[in-house]
Parts: sequence; structure tokens; C-alpha cells
Amino acid sequence: MKLFFDPRQLDHAPALELHNGGYVPYAEHPGRVKNMLARLTETEAPTDRGETPIARIHGPAYLAFLKSAHRQWVDAGRAGDATGYVWPIVGRRPLHLQRIDAQFGQYSFDAASPVAAQTWDGAYWAAQTALAATDAVLNGAPAAFALCRPPGHHAGADYLGGYCYLNNVAIAAQAAIDAGKARVAILDVDYHHGNGTQDIFYDRGDVLFVSIHADPVTDYPFFWGHADECGDGAGEGANLNIPLPRGTGMADYQVALKTALYSIAAFAPEVLLVSFGADTYEGDPISQFKLKTEDFTEIAAQISAADLPTVIVMEGGYATEALGDNVASFLSGF
Amino acid sequence: MKLFFDPRQLDHAPALELHNGGYVPYAEHPGRVKNMLARLTETEAPTDRGETPIARIHGPAYLAFLKSAHRQWVDAGRAGDATGYVWPIVGRRPLHLQRIDAQFGQYSFDAASPVAAQTWDGAYWAAQTALAATDAVLNGAPAAFALCRPPGHHAGADYLGGYCYLNNVAIAAQAAIDAGKARVAILDVDYHHGNGTQDIFYDRGDVLFVSIHADPVTDYPFFWGHADECGDGAGEGANLNIPLPRGTGMADYQVALKTALYSIAAFAPEVLLVSFGADTYEGDPISQFKLKTEDFTEIAAQISAADLPTVIVMEGGYATEALGDNVASFLSGF
Repeated sequence: MKLFFDPRQLDHAPALELHNGGYVPYAEHPGRVKNMLARLTETEAPTDRGETPIARIHGPAYLAFLKSAHRQWVDAGRAGDATGYVWPIVGRRPLHLQRIDAQFGQYSFDAASPVAAQTWDGAYWAAQTALAATDAVLNGAPAAFALCRPPGHHAGADYLGGYCYLNNVAIAAQAAIDAGKARVAILDVDYHHGNGTQDIFYDRGDVLFVSIHADPVTDYPFFWGHADECGDGAGEGANLNIPLPRGTGMADYQVALKTALYSIAAFAPEVLLVSFGADTYEGDPISQFKLKTEDFTEIAAQISAADLPTVIVMEGGYATEALGDNVASFLSGF
Repeated sequence: MKLFFDPRQLDHAPALELHNGGYVPYAEHPGRVKNMLARLTETEAPTDRGETPIARIHGPAYLAFLKSAHRQWVDAGRAGDATGYVWPIVGRRPLHLQRIDAQFGQYSFDAASPVAAQTWDGAYWAAQTALAATDAVLNGAPAAFALCRPPGHHAGADYLGGYCYLNNVAIAAQAAIDAGKARVAILDVDYHHGNGTQDIFYDRGDVLFVSIHADPVTDYPFFWGHADECGDGAGEGANLNIPLPRGTGMADYQVALKTALYSIAAFAPEVLLVSFGADTYEGDPISQFKLKTEDFTEIAAQISAADLPTVIVMEGGYATEALGDNVASFLSGF
């Protein structure tokens, strides 16, 4: 399988995040990738496809914010990485706000995803990596892996959050559509609900979004990922959330996966994109499922049995020491 | 003029707030009240009117959260005051979320308004103080002052924020309506827009909300208080925002005040409630208007000339040393 990665993704390196009432070291750190690379020796750097495919998902105001946020922060005399402290929970609408704190409220949904000096570069090359893997599949590869980092599935069209800045899998899905595919499906098997991906495609019927994740009643991102979120308008029925309780192991996970794959088969997509998070692993420090390293091979094998051209996009996974093994286990199932 | 205050309001005392990217001492501290009390010797404690008038504005789920939030925080093993880190900027809807962090997202809009051990008690007695002043006016007093603290005008029906937990002026306005007044007006002259009050009455035609405040393009709460927010449905036209630029002094402020009072006169309310913040003062550490202590007397005199029964409810003001003088100056104009 072709594996894509760009070392400039490592340049994004926030120091701290606000979590459960205090600042803690940023869990989505560059060391995650280094552990994966130790197990994936044959990665290929993406060519630069520019901003056009990114701008198919993210609007110009948001992209301008993402590029300038850290500089504005420094210009305002602030230390450390840039974050917000107030959010438009009601009546959110496009506004042209001057203060950097206001812009963070406008374009983010949490205080746990700072913008550091090189965040734009890291996110840009993660998106390019996803696009390269997509092109490989569109050009005939049965499957390809994009080692994206920072991850993307929590980022909406105009907001960051959950360690995500550009929605890599959404950008990749749109690229497949723009290349002529009529229907694509996204299967999100990260521990956390992919709220950004859901939001981006919520009212579209050409992209099916199916997610298996921890019940948001107890787990981040809390406000999205509930089972009654089924899509809207042309997208009604093209959004399927399967929330599972904390402590879920492989037996129950497989039942959910069967449901997910059944709905994907019924949708009959031309391409499948998988948002893969290894934070469903039993040893993950911020998650509560009980999957073992060898379970990832079996999950991948079942996805592979759907017999669809498949782009695998890396999302979360914070048990750094086991991350390479878990990713290698997953990829071996294809 | 009758002045109301309950010492239990002082029990609310968060230690820190997240502001501009870091934790700083909580600006809305009990010392504010102590400085005011030094100039207002004749305060009267409110009698306890119970939760019923509070529940006319704030729903049961929010009140249950506010009462239990700090205990849940402690039960979760957390240190310090309770705050959130993730917010539902899109698709906010009533959800029953278990984790305290999720509940903070559901019921707040910033990371700057912690819930401390005695927050419910402090907010409860601030609301009772507002209700006592309202009853004094309903019983014939031409004006009365409620020394409310914590303040209220940023709190919505089901969310806290901006140092506000219960919306004292909204609770007072509803009490006036429930006592038989057909139309009441709220004039908000705090430096910051009273977004909670606006939101609570946005679709109602019986409560006019008029606010003079710093332009939200540069100042908190950023997302609300813009001039094009005019009310909705039955409330269309019953919401008037007058944003002013940083650096505004008395000359320009008076022009805005004339506009505000003209619209109040046109509405012909039976009672006027004033959300008074002294953070329009030139020496305020977190605000940028240029009013002088003596200007507050003139502003009050112009409001008083409207010749309406008037309930004055204390909101912000963070130049602690000058706060007593500024409040005394304002009250002397009535």
C-alpha cells in the first residue's frame, strides 16, 4: 500500500492545552508521528496541489484567520500559543471582528486547540498528504494511507477544534467528487465523533458519513455525534452515528462495524474514505474503549471486504508508544 | 433612594479567570462591593422571595446545573473553580450530558466565568436584591438601587458567562410584568453589551431592551451587540443596540443616550430598569471609554428626566478604588 507523509507536518507543535480545568501538555504532539514512522518506512511525500482543493471545503475568511492567527496573537503582545476564551453558542453568524480573541471565538469551538507558529504549515501539508493518497486511489490503487497530522475530523468548514484545523478527510472526499465520483462514503472509526466532517456534509446527499464513536453523553465532543443526527435536506439519511458506551471491546465494536458497513454498501459509493483513529486502543490515555492491537487488523479486514477503493486518513491516537504497532496492524488488514 | 444589598452576595469568590490566553485574578471580586458599601451606608437586606421569580427567566435544567456544578467538579476529582473547555457553537440544543465539562459547554459561553463553591448562593441573593428593589418601585418609590453582585446582564435563560450567572435585571423586569405592568423598558449603560438580557427578551414585544456599549467588533462579548440586532417576531423593533468606539467620552456618549431615551419614551413603558455598569469610567482597567466620575451624575439626571419609576441594577465596573465614588455619583443624579 502507498503511504504518504510530509515532514513539514511535524512543524505544528503547540505546547499546552486546556483540559478538564487546567493546562496540560498537548496530547497531539509530533512524537505521535515519529512512532508511526518507525513502523512505516516507505512513506512518500505529497506533491503540492495548492490551496484550491482546500478552499473547496474551507472558506476564505477561515483560511485567512488560520494563516494569520498566531501572528496577530504575537502582534497583540501575547505569549505562548493562541487560543480563545469566549464562544458564540447562540446566534453564530459571519462577523468581521478585530480582536484576535474574538476571531478565535468566531472560528473555533474549544480552548484545547491552540494555533502555534507553524500550525498553518503543518495543517496545509496534512491536507496535501490526504490529497496525494486520494489521487493514488483515483489512479487505480486499491488503497492508500495518508499519515495526516494534525488530524482533521473535528474541523468544520469555518472552525477549528479537537486538535484539528483543516478537515483532511473532507478535503479528500471533495477532491474525489470533483474528480468525477458521484458518491463517496466516509467511515469514521476514531474514538471521538467526527463532528466537523458531519457538519460539512450534513445537508449533502452525495457524501455519506458513518461514524462509530464513544457516546457523546460522556465523551468529547459532547454536543455532536448523537444517534438522532441523521442529516438534513438532501443529506437526510446520509449521516449515521453509532455511539457506543465507554468500555466497549471488540465483540460489541464488530456489531457496530457490521451496521456501518451495511449502510455503506446500501449507499453504493464509488470511493470509501476511512477516518482512522487508534484511540479506540485499550491503552489510550484519553479514551475508554478496549480494542487490542490485533483487533485493528480484523477491523481493517472487514472494511477491506467491502471491496471499495479506499483512502485511509489518520486521525487520533494518543498512546504514543503503541501507535506505530496499532497503525501497522490496521494497515496490514487491507 | 432605597438601596438594597445582601452580604451573602460576597460569598461568591472565584480565584482566577481565563483572559487573553492566560489565567489572571478574577476581576469581578468581592472587593468591588466593599468599596461601594463604604459610600452607601444605608443598605437594606432583601427578604427572600424564593426561586419562583428566578424560574420565570431561567429553566429548571440550568438552575439544577448552577446549583450542582461545583459539587460535580469536586466529585470528578478536579481542583480549583469549575469551568468548561468546549462549546456548541453550531447546532446547540437541549441535551442531557453527563460529564461536568460537557455541562459547562451546554450552559456557558466563555472560559472566564468559573463556578466556585458559593456561586449559587451569591447569585441567588443578587437576584433577591434586584427583586427587592423592584418591589420598592412597584410599591411607589420613584427609584431604588439594587447592589447586585455577581452581575447579571451577560447571563441568558440557560447559560452563564461574563461573570454573570442569573440575569438580575431580566428577573426584575419579568417580576414587574408579572405584577401587572404591560410594558417595561431596560436601559443597559454598562461598557459591555448585555447579550443575555437581549437574548432573553429578543422575541418579546412587552420588554424593550436598549443598550449603549463598546462596539463588539473590538470588545467583549464580540458576537452580540451589533447595531443590526433589532429583535425578532413580536420583539422586532424592541431591541436597540448603540455600539460606540473605544475612547468615547461624555460628548459622544450623551448623543447616544439621547437616542436611547427617545426610543424609550416612544415605547412608553410603565417601569424603567437600568443595568448600570461603572466600567465606562476612564480609569477602568478592562474597558476603554473616557467617562469621568461627575459624568455619571449627568447621565443619571438625563435618565431621571424621563420621569419613569426606575429600578437601578448594578452590573460591572472594575476600577475598584473609584467604584464607590462612581456609583454614588450616578445615584445622586436621581
